[in-house]
Amino acid sequence: MLKFYYHTTPNPFKVALMLEELGIDYDTVPVDTRKGEQHAADFLALNPNAKLPVIDDDGTVVFDSNAILLYLARKHGRFMPAETDGQALSWFFFVATGLSPFSGQAVHFTRVHTDSAYATNRYEKEIARHYRLLDDHLASNEWIGGSDYDIADIAAWGWVAMAPFVLEAQGGLDPYPNVKAWFDRVNARPAAERAMALRTKFDFKQEMDETAMRAMFPSNFD
Amino acid sequence: MLKFYYHTTPNPFKVALMLEELGIDYDTVPVDTRKGEQHAADFLALNPNAKLPVIDDDGTVVFDSNAILLYLARKHGRFMPAETDGQALSWFFFVATGLSPFSGQAVHFTRVHTDSAYATNRYEKEIARHYRLLDDHLASNEWIGGSDYDIADIAAWGWVAMAPFVLEAQGGLDPYPNVKAWFDRVNARPAAERAMALRTKFDFKQEMDETAMRAMFPSNFD
Repeated sequence: MLKFYYHTTPNPFKVALMLEELGIDYDTVPVDTRKGEQHAADFLALNPNAKLPVIDDDGTVVFDSNAILLYLARKHGRFMPAETDGQALSWFFFVATGLSPFSGQAVHFTRVHTDSAYATNRYEKEIARHYRLLDDHLASNEWIGGSDYDIADIAAWGWVAMAPFVLEAQGGLDPYPNVKAWFDRVNARPAAERAMALRTKFDFKQEMDETAMRAMFPSNFD
Repeated sequence: MLKFYYHTTPNPFKVALMLEELGIDYDTVPVDTRKGEQHAADFLALNPNAKLPVIDDDGTVVFDSNAILLYLARKHGRFMPAETDGQALSWFFFVATGLSPFSGQAVHFTRVHTDSAYATNRYEKEIARHYRLLDDHLASNEWIGGSDYDIADIAAWGWVAMAPFVLEAQGGLDPYPNVKAWFDRVNARPAAERAMALRTKFDFKQEMDETAMRAMFPSNFD
């Protein structure tokens, strides 16, 4: 059976939604990143990048949330942009290489480290810019890839679910009504509700103590 | 004929290499980002994200360098990881969502803005970590995806070509002999030489004056 290594952070939840959409059976394997379990040798053998999520699909190991979405979409022939659909592919990567990593940087410089005013401004503005572009795009598109719900939506959902936190200073999704309406459309899908249920399936460590900081941000302690 | 909108920066050069590998005819359209040409209405209609590269393949517009690689690989059935090859897909996204955006942040905080010591350290360490992981991976793999040259290599080449600049403080590729050997293997391909020739095809603006800073880093001037 497919094993899904996860934590209750945005990137694994993209994969949770995809697995629920596909309706395939899987085992959830919690990896507690605040305890440093992502640095254990067994886990690094699956993903040397020491990050969640990872899947082990009966021996086929895939890491990076977007790689997993693409792998599963191709394997099952569902939620995959058509070969000729340049816009759907473009927006999938806008989410994968823009919205997602810049959301992560914005969280870092507004929550973890707030003493670098330049960096905080840079990432707050960059993430607002990404949301504004997505909002403009969704003014005339039902789904992020265009007319069909696909991996671009599934990829975006993981981080947009965190918007109340990531965009707190600007009022969460309030300035982005089209993103908000899109988010409601995704949440109305039964798969989204099932994916969300994983948030409380295991007790993950909550404390951001020094052990957690060292495990999650080793570059600050080198 | 396919139009290739580009600038002499790392992301467009991934696409230049791909086009040369495929041996298809294309027109190069220079977009001078230091003059702000990426913010012109005509260009934003192609890519609202105001970034290079973009292709217009007889009406099919694709933006984001990695989306373009995937689009062209699928269309032409070349350099595409097999559907069952989880590792090749994983490493393609390691490059697309990790090595590439973190290289960009490292350049920003070591060249453009150097007064945020925390951010400079964060991104110098993160990019070194990505290169170390890639170097370890290439100790036992000829190509980034594994045994075949594919879009993971083509994606990485654009940024690795900038390593003498991005990694200058640590001696460029010297600490990463396996990456260096891989880079030499890619450069030995005739397509790489032809792609590199695009660097001098047009005279792009060189000065990083205030116009250039405003065009490239608008979030600093909001």
